[in-house]
Amino acid sequence: MKPSPSIFRQVLYQLPPTIARLQHEVVSPDATLAVTGFIKSIRRQKRVSFAVLSDGSHAQGIQAVFLDTSLTDGLTNGTSVRLTGKIKDSPGQKQDRELLVDGVEILGECDPELYPIQKQTLTTEYLRENMHLRARTDYVSAVLRLRSCLMHSVMDYFNTQGFCFTHTPILTGNDAEGAGETFRLAQFPDPQPDGPNETSEFFGHSAHLTVSSQLHLEALASGLSRVYTLSPCFRAERSQTNRHLAEFWMLEAEWMDANREGVQGICGLVEDSVKSYASDVIGGQDVEVLWKDFDEVRRKTLVDSLPKPWARMTYRDAIKALQDAKNVKFEFEPRWGRTLQSEHEKWLAEIFVSGPVFITDYPGDLKPFYMRANEDGETVGCFDLIVPYVGELVGGSIREERVDVLESKMRKDGLGLGKHEYGWYTDLRRYGGSPHVGFGMGFERLVAWLGGIDNVRECVPMPRWASKMLL
Amino acid sequence: MKPSPSIFRQVLYQLPPTIARLQHEVVSPDATLAVTGFIKSIRRQKRVSFAVLSDGSHAQGIQAVFLDTSLTDGLTNGTSVRLTGKIKDSPGQKQDRELLVDGVEILGECDPELYPIQKQTLTTEYLRENMHLRARTDYVSAVLRLRSCLMHSVMDYFNTQGFCFTHTPILTGNDAEGAGETFRLAQFPDPQPDGPNETSEFFGHSAHLTVSSQLHLEALASGLSRVYTLSPCFRAERSQTNRHLAEFWMLEAEWMDANREGVQGICGLVEDSVKSYASDVIGGQDVEVLWKDFDEVRRKTLVDSLPKPWARMTYRDAIKALQDAKNVKFEFEPRWGRTLQSEHEKWLAEIFVSGPVFITDYPGDLKPFYMRANEDGETVGCFDLIVPYVGELVGGSIREERVDVLESKMRKDGLGLGKHEYGWYTDLRRYGGSPHVGFGMGFERLVAWLGGIDNVRECVPMPRWASKMLL
Repeated sequence: MKPSPSIFRQVLYQLPPTIARLQHEVVSPDATLAVTGFIKSIRRQKRVSFAVLSDGSHAQGIQAVFLDTSLTDGLTNGTSVRLTGKIKDSPGQKQDRELLVDGVEILGECDPELYPIQKQTLTTEYLRENMHLRARTDYVSAVLRLRSCLMHSVMDYFNTQGFCFTHTPILTGNDAEGAGETFRLAQFPDPQPDGPNETSEFFGHSAHLTVSSQLHLEALASGLSRVYTLSPCFRAERSQTNRHLAEFWMLEAEWMDANREGVQGICGLVEDSVKSYASDVIGGQDVEVLWKDFDEVRRKTLVDSLPKPWARMTYRDAIKALQDAKNVKFEFEPRWGRTLQSEHEKWLAEIFVSGPVFITDYPGDLKPFYMRANEDGETVGCFDLIVPYVGELVGGSIREERVDVLESKMRKDGLGLGKHEYGWYTDLRRYGGSPHVGFGMGFERLVAWLGGIDNVRECVPMPRWASKMLL
Repeated sequence: MKPSPSIFRQVLYQLPPTIARLQHEVVSPDATLAVTGFIKSIRRQKRVSFAVLSDGSHAQGIQAVFLDTSLTDGLTNGTSVRLTGKIKDSPGQKQDRELLVDGVEILGECDPELYPIQKQTLTTEYLRENMHLRARTDYVSAVLRLRSCLMHSVMDYFNTQGFCFTHTPILTGNDAEGAGETFRLAQFPDPQPDGPNETSEFFGHSAHLTVSSQLHLEALASGLSRVYTLSPCFRAERSQTNRHLAEFWMLEAEWMDANREGVQGICGLVEDSVKSYASDVIGGQDVEVLWKDFDEVRRKTLVDSLPKPWARMTYRDAIKALQDAKNVKFEFEPRWGRTLQSEHEKWLAEIFVSGPVFITDYPGDLKPFYMRANEDGETVGCFDLIVPYVGELVGGSIREERVDVLESKMRKDGLGLGKHEYGWYTDLRRYGGSPHVGFGMGFERLVAWLGGIDNVRECVPMPRWASKMLL
């Protein structure tokens, strides 16, 4: 599904090198280059001045050295400039290379009195209120580069496993989990009104924002066998936790379970993929910036878990472990048949396992209709992956492929089986449907976990949550 | 922005090879393998039977050969199976390799009388009505693989040019082009009603589906310098043309114009990038399938345009060419100051230039407020890229960076400049804003052009347009 680019293609246009490229690639020490960016900080001394220039491509930016200190006239934090000069290896320890400046062009002025991104440490709350400028901070730009990196990692991983990237619809007539809390589109004034104040549905019936791409992915998997998407999802939850957003991005995959490996197979692919993403980014400069002033225990738990196999336990065994837990008082009593609360998941991952843990085979009554009933008649073939300090990162299951079992569960849930209701979904089983599996991963939670970021509101460029939508 | 994956990472889990892999990679001729997919066609003869098996990974699938014809009992078109056997080079001309079958497991039956995807040619309209199963056809699965390929091409291209991939918001308080026709979220019943039937906004104010990511990308570019996204966009247009959807995907990029190359620089990057995508996919099996029964003239126009520089002309020259056109009667008279109609664009690309054409520097009155005013006081620094038989593929411009010019245009358009209106957008100019440029490309139109597809409704897995939203 990935092209093999022709090596003979002639490149017709090339943008000038970014600072990241100037820091890492071979540069002739005598060539005069131009570097564009904005001033992060400036230090004026008698005989020489220094500035850090950033273009957002590199965690450290580049140090600009002005032997002619008059060149820094008018330069303040935030000013956009085009500097010309020569690239030299830096004698200092903090920088890899520096730019010996011989020319300055000011591209955009910045009033240092009014500039909202002052040099002193700014709170995350303050930066959320100044969301349009927060990509100028070291922290937020590192998050955004990390996110871009992970997007590439995800696409590389799934391509290697033979998956096709797809764009599933955002607007839908159904809500995949039958769970309410969906956003609905407003009606329009009717262009041919029957009476005053008539309104009508643009699509002829109600339209909702998707809460999950799963059902649509299953339709595509019926033809393509292995499909995935990274798609926006929407939940109208009023909760104000550090791991919920009203608009978030979800990585979802569905594939034919050719070898009938079931839940253990999904766990295998999920564990392999997440470790692959982690190995792409951990140790990189951006992740270093993000973890710098964060929790060392959390970092160690993450890094230590990567070379080891991740724990897998059934819901039944998890309940037993929780019931047997010493020296801990849960607000909610752990009992078979009840939902695992955040406090339970937290204890299992952070204390009991001290690492990521797959919890499998939950009671069917706790899970949606599409999960495959196990032989025991009580549980379903599913899992949640719980990671320390973030909570649920992934949820997945075998999908019920037996049309009679599926339809009886859907009837029980009150889901319509007509052609314009969920009939298309049961059709997938009727016409050559075969055993298949899938999962969904909250992309912001992945960013939060790998980046050591406390709140998913920092993990997406422009977060939206109840009562809050800037820009 | 792209990781350099560690070559030492241990792969922990591997799905079995797809048919695409079995067709192209080294396979031991004596190893017994399992191949999972569904039957595309079956041909029973006295001593040997043949079936084409597809898993959606490869345009041709693989031919399965049954020397024991009793193994095909119960196999019909659409049946999902797991076949075991040995891979051999095919003696036939049509197939690369074939599977000599010695074992069959039926994974999902398919009633040949009821199966909606019959072997005879099905119309695109019929397949749209059976959207949940249309990925099982050769045509639609080739489109979906092409789309996936192009997604990889896009990400590779922008990574090479130093861009950061970002996820811009879908829900927004503004409509970027001030052009109406936006979808709006419905209000919710108020959880603390002041009276009966009270409703309220989930975000505290009205929320719309984005029509373009541009303004948000500009905010991110103020920190990251080069950003792009491939994001869903929404327009509540009631037009039923073959190139409009209510939900579509748009590739948008913004970058600092360090060398002040202006419109010619954007055109340079756009031309280079589109030629790069084309060289990744043209000649591939999927594109071959798609063009097979399509228009040979269109194909030749496309292929011939790739090694040549693409034409660039000003709007002024385009109007002149249209006015001077012989042997053609336009419904709308071409005249300076008026919009170019589809018939005009069509004539320019298909007749006058016979290839893609960039039309630059339109009158400011025809274009949105954010485009940079040229020195002539009449036109703005912008372009549209028109391609034969598809029409407008890309639109872009220099963004107005002069805060006074921008604000006066916004006031004229009645756009609020307060903190919670568009004040954040003018802020970007106030605090170190520097000259920058950008463009937007309709992703479905790119798929349509390169794939020779007549209607964008076939270029996205599950299309939505006025009065139509299945699944």
